[in-house]
Amino acid sequence: MELTKENVLKALSHVLDPDIKKDLVTLGMIENIQIEGNQLAFTVMLTTPACPLKELIKNDCLKAIEKHLGEDIEVEVEMSSHVTTTRDNTPLLPGVKNIIAVASGKGGVGKSTVTANLAVALAKSGAKVGVIDADIFGPSMPTMFNCEHEQPGIKKVGEKNLIMPIEQYGVKLISIGFLTPAENAVVWRGPMASSALKQFIADTEWGELDYLLIDLPPGTSDIHLTLVQTVPVTGAVIVTTPQKVAIADAQKGLNMFKQPQINVPVLGVIENMAYFTPEELPDNKYYIFGQGGGKKLAERFDVPFIGEIPLVQGIREGGDLGYPAIMKEGIVADAFAKVAESTAQRIAIRNAEKKETKKVEINA
Amino acid sequence: MELTKENVLKALSHVLDPDIKKDLVTLGMIENIQIEGNQLAFTVMLTTPACPLKELIKNDCLKAIEKHLGEDIEVEVEMSSHVTTTRDNTPLLPGVKNIIAVASGKGGVGKSTVTANLAVALAKSGAKVGVIDADIFGPSMPTMFNCEHEQPGIKKVGEKNLIMPIEQYGVKLISIGFLTPAENAVVWRGPMASSALKQFIADTEWGELDYLLIDLPPGTSDIHLTLVQTVPVTGAVIVTTPQKVAIADAQKGLNMFKQPQINVPVLGVIENMAYFTPEELPDNKYYIFGQGGGKKLAERFDVPFIGEIPLVQGIREGGDLGYPAIMKEGIVADAFAKVAESTAQRIAIRNAEKKETKKVEINA
Repeated sequence: MELTKENVLKALSHVLDPDIKKDLVTLGMIENIQIEGNQLAFTVMLTTPACPLKELIKNDCLKAIEKHLGEDIEVEVEMSSHVTTTRDNTPLLPGVKNIIAVASGKGGVGKSTVTANLAVALAKSGAKVGVIDADIFGPSMPTMFNCEHEQPGIKKVGEKNLIMPIEQYGVKLISIGFLTPAENAVVWRGPMASSALKQFIADTEWGELDYLLIDLPPGTSDIHLTLVQTVPVTGAVIVTTPQKVAIADAQKGLNMFKQPQINVPVLGVIENMAYFTPEELPDNKYYIFGQGGGKKLAERFDVPFIGEIPLVQGIREGGDLGYPAIMKEGIVADAFAKVAESTAQRIAIRNAEKKETKKVEINA
Repeated sequence: MELTKENVLKALSHVLDPDIKKDLVTLGMIENIQIEGNQLAFTVMLTTPACPLKELIKNDCLKAIEKHLGEDIEVEVEMSSHVTTTRDNTPLLPGVKNIIAVASGKGGVGKSTVTANLAVALAKSGAKVGVIDADIFGPSMPTMFNCEHEQPGIKKVGEKNLIMPIEQYGVKLISIGFLTPAENAVVWRGPMASSALKQFIADTEWGELDYLLIDLPPGTSDIHLTLVQTVPVTGAVIVTTPQKVAIADAQKGLNMFKQPQINVPVLGVIENMAYFTPEELPDNKYYIFGQGGGKKLAERFDVPFIGEIPLVQGIREGGDLGYPAIMKEGIVADAFAKVAESTAQRIAIRNAEKKETKKVEINA
């Protein structure tokens, strides 16, 4: 075949996106085809910069060109990305492509640690990321991002005063921790807490974001209901540890999102503290909290198992010192990077397969 | 001195209760003095059956009799107990001597595990114990007490239908887990959850109890406010793990009880998961979550440090299997027994030193 734009597209229509199971041309992922003599360049627009299949897709493209257009073409493939969304006509947060709830049911399973590391990992991959710390009674983000003493500015936009999120490690953050002294207990009944969350959503200058992660508190109450009633949530990630009492609560969290009137797609389950590994004896894995509980939970509810994170002293220390573990090289960073890629992949698949989530309108 | 009732009381008035720092006679702790020839018998009524100073007090009594009444008396000291209370004129739960809130601020620090083990330890010592599982969104007590499939009966008392608590391992229990299927999420706003708690307090047949433990959910919101507004709480125990983000939340929990309008005495801090010990390498202590955080918290707020519990696989397994770790011999059972004794001691001291707690009347 002759080297023309048309033939390049024909060749590339044999390459499937392995997740979405459609070809790259139909998916509109091929852009910017340039031909000069026997030199060909084009761009593959992935659905997320954190795509774990980047290399695979690139290779498939090279092979398809070679097979259908011949071996003597010099090919340059640029891998870029354009994060997909189903949030096209939303009055609230119109610039935010995906709103992801990070939930657990049970507290203390490392939901905030996972949120912080997911956020930094996605930002490192090139995505625009924000985090709402919706744990009004136990905000951890300011500590985990080492910005406990920051105070968000206020910007007048039209008639409205908007809160400016704090920016740290490439992530935009808002937390009640920035607005009240750390030692003080916020002893509020639900409606007060809910109105704080509404402010974090509606009265904060989020601008353009690929992913806005919501770190939810434990339980299934006011904050959770307020979230799904305020904005359509793209999907939820369930964090659990392997033991029975945690799985039992994670199940409740999962069931909440699956309730017909709430109906937020569950992107998958992340198992945290899967096993403990002493740093000097890395081959010893202690299944302190049991084994495989997260995977079993995912199977039982027929949702993807996104991945597991080991329990290593460094993770906790990173959180306490204000440097998410993903920022240091090692087995933990690798585990978090993988989990972030799989999460991004799950979001892309969800956006390809399902329509937008509807805001919950019932008066629950 | 002659062996008379009067002289026995004189002799024993030299023995101090080491905690309350008053003598046993003034405290009314000597009962049932019986004299026959040179044989003397009496009963020491301790303020709790779990008194850690039992042996010490008994020895002090023997020594005082020997010193003041001579060596040739045959003495038999019976150690009994009568749990003290400051809840004398309370319309709600009049038969309950002490209501103890177990709180944490942060979830997942093992608050429910500590509550279950405290309860069983106190019951084993001879006390009458009840537990309200106030974690409406993540009830753990049914699993931890291996009675997930029990259903509480209803008893008609006068005009009222009272819920009959489940009894297991000598402890009376109530939990939302007995009333809803385990997998279902209880997606309720605060007022619904609060009214469940009120039922557990007011519409449950508790009868006579020395200690009613309330296992609180994480946070500082509806359930916490409802508790202190419904009944006067004798005292609160704060459970934390050593890491910074947990301590930060424990602080909030502690501060809530110390707020002038709430004013519930804080009995002390229990540090859970103080270190991890593999069962085959018991000398290796891994301070996974940091070291000494609980003690520092207690010092900073000038409240007692009640004790620490190590992280051992057996604790979690006990919880998951429905047998609290205190029921098996070993380092963990020892640690929990000590913590239970110290807690009972702290309650006795609180009752001796302070007046009753007032129910919170504000409209918070």
